[in-house]
Amino acid sequence: MQVLRRVAETQRLSERVRCAGERIALVPTMGALHRGHRALLAEARGRADRAWVSIFVNPTQFDAASDLESYPRNLEEDLAVCREEGVDVVFAPSEEELYPAGAQTWVEVVDLSRPLCGAARPGHFRGVATVVTKLLLATRPHLAVFGHKDHQQLAVVRRLVRDLCLDVEVVGVPTVREPDGLALSSRNVHLGPETRRQARVLVRALRAAQAAGSGGEQRRDVLLALVEREIAKAPLARLDYAELRDPDTLEPAPSRLSGPTLLALAVRFPCGEGRTVRLIDNCVLHPRAAEEEGT
Amino acid sequence: MQVLRRVAETQRLSERVRCAGERIALVPTMGALHRGHRALLAEARGRADRAWVSIFVNPTQFDAASDLESYPRNLEEDLAVCREEGVDVVFAPSEEELYPAGAQTWVEVVDLSRPLCGAARPGHFRGVATVVTKLLLATRPHLAVFGHKDHQQLAVVRRLVRDLCLDVEVVGVPTVREPDGLALSSRNVHLGPETRRQARVLVRALRAAQAAGSGGEQRRDVLLALVEREIAKAPLARLDYAELRDPDTLEPAPSRLSGPTLLALAVRFPCGEGRTVRLIDNCVLHPRAAEEEGT
Repeated sequence: MQVLRRVAETQRLSERVRCAGERIALVPTMGALHRGHRALLAEARGRADRAWVSIFVNPTQFDAASDLESYPRNLEEDLAVCREEGVDVVFAPSEEELYPAGAQTWVEVVDLSRPLCGAARPGHFRGVATVVTKLLLATRPHLAVFGHKDHQQLAVVRRLVRDLCLDVEVVGVPTVREPDGLALSSRNVHLGPETRRQARVLVRALRAAQAAGSGGEQRRDVLLALVEREIAKAPLARLDYAELRDPDTLEPAPSRLSGPTLLALAVRFPCGEGRTVRLIDNCVLHPRAAEEEGT
Repeated sequence: MQVLRRVAETQRLSERVRCAGERIALVPTMGALHRGHRALLAEARGRADRAWVSIFVNPTQFDAASDLESYPRNLEEDLAVCREEGVDVVFAPSEEELYPAGAQTWVEVVDLSRPLCGAARPGHFRGVATVVTKLLLATRPHLAVFGHKDHQQLAVVRRLVRDLCLDVEVVGVPTVREPDGLALSSRNVHLGPETRRQARVLVRALRAAQAAGSGGEQRRDVLLALVEREIAKAPLARLDYAELRDPDTLEPAPSRLSGPTLLALAVRFPCGEGRTVRLIDNCVLHPRAAEEEGT
């Protein structure tokens, strides 16, 4: 396994691999690799000749300095995971390498960056779009693998790849969950035992809405009220948002759902010293018209 | 000579050429090719195995709809010029190809886009940065050739290439001029006989400042007053800006010039029906300390 620090050497290697006719799949990460990342790596290995990983805690996508500081970092453990998973190349640049002195260029995916997590985290998706562009251009993969857990991020990346003429296939991988349903996240380490237990409300709320949707419930407001009631069952949970939107454009869903619809949640839990940890989760509802409506 | 319309086929060809070990030089243009572009093409041919040209009138860099409409277009004439100049590939995409339905991704080089032409043309350099990124990713050249006449554009492109990890060498080519000194520009066609004659004031003002600088004048305000006096000699000229700035960062020059300094001009002339044509020109002053200052 090669660990590369510099953009130029990474580009040279990518060109050699590409010209040898081999396909590269990149998994962009911020490190703190967990089983969710292992699923992305398995997807990468299965779809390409070479599995590459980038590890870079991107400062420009953090809206709070405390969140950036507390983000878990352990390169040696991450490299051990990469070795176990048969990764060929780890690209782990310094901050200076991706943001050289005087850097001032931003990539912005305007409409998709506004709602949901973008509303609560100004500048977050501009930081994501900018760093993903840099990482894709530094590594030049044939495909890039992202988790569906960060649905909005995936939508932003798909859009920027299309809009900027990046010849990269974007692959989404289903969210990996703990046995009780909690979506894996590097931020779960901040949960204490009680908040960890209560954090199950996110997936419970999603499943309640899915069940209602499959049962014929198509009314947006009824589904959202159901979700809010589920979240309220966890006394420590503070709902940040629960929204129904188009999975691709992120446009608000109509008052009566008519096709696949994203249900996206963000919930805060206290994690000591007056701080909170913000968890997100989502699913796509496939509302089925109730029988009396003629289907 | 191949004329390609689609991004995907252009990327496939570029990959084949690159993997065959040949170097590609791209000259991005908006068509209306003149002798200035021929100088860029000659530079491209001299520096690479393959000379590629893009022809695309980019709507997002025009701040006025009338300017976009009146921009000269003649693809057949442009292709004839390309054939004469030994161009290998012309990439001439449709607007839909570079801005697909729902496109919403912008590349912005924040600080360099603000002054000079950016102040008078809001959004112009965001459009330039965005389309140049798309064109470079669609063609994937080893190097890209731009004219020094659009000095700020060149500075923006150099910065975005570095910031976004684009592995492209950016090459600047000196401005090509008419026998009387007027810088070649696709917009010169809008000049009538009298405004064409008066348009010589731009290069005269530049030369006056260069002569003063070489003669030991380092005072910013004295040099700018000299330029303004020269421009005022043309009764039809309306000075848009005359500024002294750092050639790379475009930061304002100090009150006493100490190193190479960009002198940039924009001047408007009437071109009938109440409309104006805006001409730009620039040079880099190399101020020499006067003898009494100990050099």
